[in-house]
Amino acid sequence: MSKEKDDLYIIKIGGNVIDNSENLYKFLKDFTALKGYKILVHGGGKVATQLSETLGIEAKMVDGRRITDIETLRVVTMVYGGLINKNIVAQLQRFGTNAIGLTGADGDFIRTKKRPVKTIDYGFVGDMDEKSIHPENIKKLMDAGFTPAFCAITHDGEGQLLNTNADTIASALAVALSKLYHTTLIYCFEKAGVLKDITDEASLIQEIDPDYYKELKEKEIIHSGMLPKLDNAFTAIGCGVKQVIIGHADNLGLLNDSKPFGTRLSKGV
Amino acid sequence: MSKEKDDLYIIKIGGNVIDNSENLYKFLKDFTALKGYKILVHGGGKVATQLSETLGIEAKMVDGRRITDIETLRVVTMVYGGLINKNIVAQLQRFGTNAIGLTGADGDFIRTKKRPVKTIDYGFVGDMDEKSIHPENIKKLMDAGFTPAFCAITHDGEGQLLNTNADTIASALAVALSKLYHTTLIYCFEKAGVLKDITDEASLIQEIDPDYYKELKEKEIIHSGMLPKLDNAFTAIGCGVKQVIIGHADNLGLLNDSKPFGTRLSKGV
Repeated sequence: MSKEKDDLYIIKIGGNVIDNSENLYKFLKDFTALKGYKILVHGGGKVATQLSETLGIEAKMVDGRRITDIETLRVVTMVYGGLINKNIVAQLQRFGTNAIGLTGADGDFIRTKKRPVKTIDYGFVGDMDEKSIHPENIKKLMDAGFTPAFCAITHDGEGQLLNTNADTIASALAVALSKLYHTTLIYCFEKAGVLKDITDEASLIQEIDPDYYKELKEKEIIHSGMLPKLDNAFTAIGCGVKQVIIGHADNLGLLNDSKPFGTRLSKGV
Repeated sequence: MSKEKDDLYIIKIGGNVIDNSENLYKFLKDFTALKGYKILVHGGGKVATQLSETLGIEAKMVDGRRITDIETLRVVTMVYGGLINKNIVAQLQRFGTNAIGLTGADGDFIRTKKRPVKTIDYGFVGDMDEKSIHPENIKKLMDAGFTPAFCAITHDGEGQLLNTNADTIASALAVALSKLYHTTLIYCFEKAGVLKDITDEASLIQEIDPDYYKELKEKEIIHSGMLPKLDNAFTAIGCGVKQVIIGHADNLGLLNDSKPFGTRLSKGV
């Protein structure tokens, strides 16, 4: 490991954290206490769904996948980019983090391509590729003393905003920025981490390396919903991210106390 | 005039520009062509009113003044901070301006105080004072290569977002930043500038200094709606702003061609 690189934490919070203001405030306080460079990435939450319902916009699903039509894009731009993002920024400022709330359009930080129509037209959804993020761009903002807080909206560089998965944004940021920083990617959600038994928080697995992951998959110990998250995590690690942590948003403070927090995924030895 | 200071344009566009996407795109293209440092400030437009109506939120007025209750604050945070601001940023990026869309909460750039309740409770409205803006903060963002695009929302530093008049934000930015830049404040709206006859665009007054302004007021040539704008403009000039221009959003390109644009207000000789 090169000594010249600074540590960077990229922390993604899901909708369940955002929906509960008490949990959210605790999380943002712990986020503020975390030393070093950091980037927040947040997803949606119930508010967008509720607003869509109130406005009579039907949730369009094809084969169980959500479609972002132009009306839905307007709603997520309002809710993710406006309501949620700016309230998170105001709270972070209150706690002392000099945050700037961002979409991928701001600063041209995350440029994506509208997903091509094959069998399904997903609508205004942006897919990332290896050119989506220029890490030097984001470094400029952090060097100027600001902490980026990204919502799950990107742009195509041609004036079109695009809805983009927040988990994917977080891991792509982690990979791109690992060229400049020692990057830790943290997924905060409503469970203690990766559990052997989904109903038992005490069954937390503290460490997983690629070999152990293979074993857990073979023994079908890891449940289906967790597989894409873990696959992405190990891909990120393969692309330069130092470690990935999956843990409960309430427990982020443990990291500040240098205590074990959630499930740690690493390259192994 | 000190030679060390760079030029800075602070350009405010009103709702009438935002409501017409063709006009808006032309303006954003001309804004991009403008050389030097620049900051965009935008107001609302019809979208917020329309969304409020759709959501069944009644516009609350007291003595002809709009009240920002908590529901209205949510709507303006969504529409100004999300929908309008992020679409403006995406268009600016398309034209080649490396914009970052901001509320006053972002970067703690504009901190205001909730308007005290005297006879009227205006709700979640933020008032600026001389400590609201730290120009060095905003300079850091511009020095890092980004162009700020502010919507009309600020914060109190305690986690509360506040609705704030966009004209006031623009002039306060111009005054605060005149410590570091040669600042020109430009109000773009749907008229050619200050007109002698409000029905005749050809009656444009090209230059007004304080003496001429006094004369125009005494002769009641300037109509009532323009008075607060001009009073604010001359106050800004008294506080260090080099000049204020009031002109049609469609004509901003004239400034790029060094042609006379709108009504120019200055300190005089």
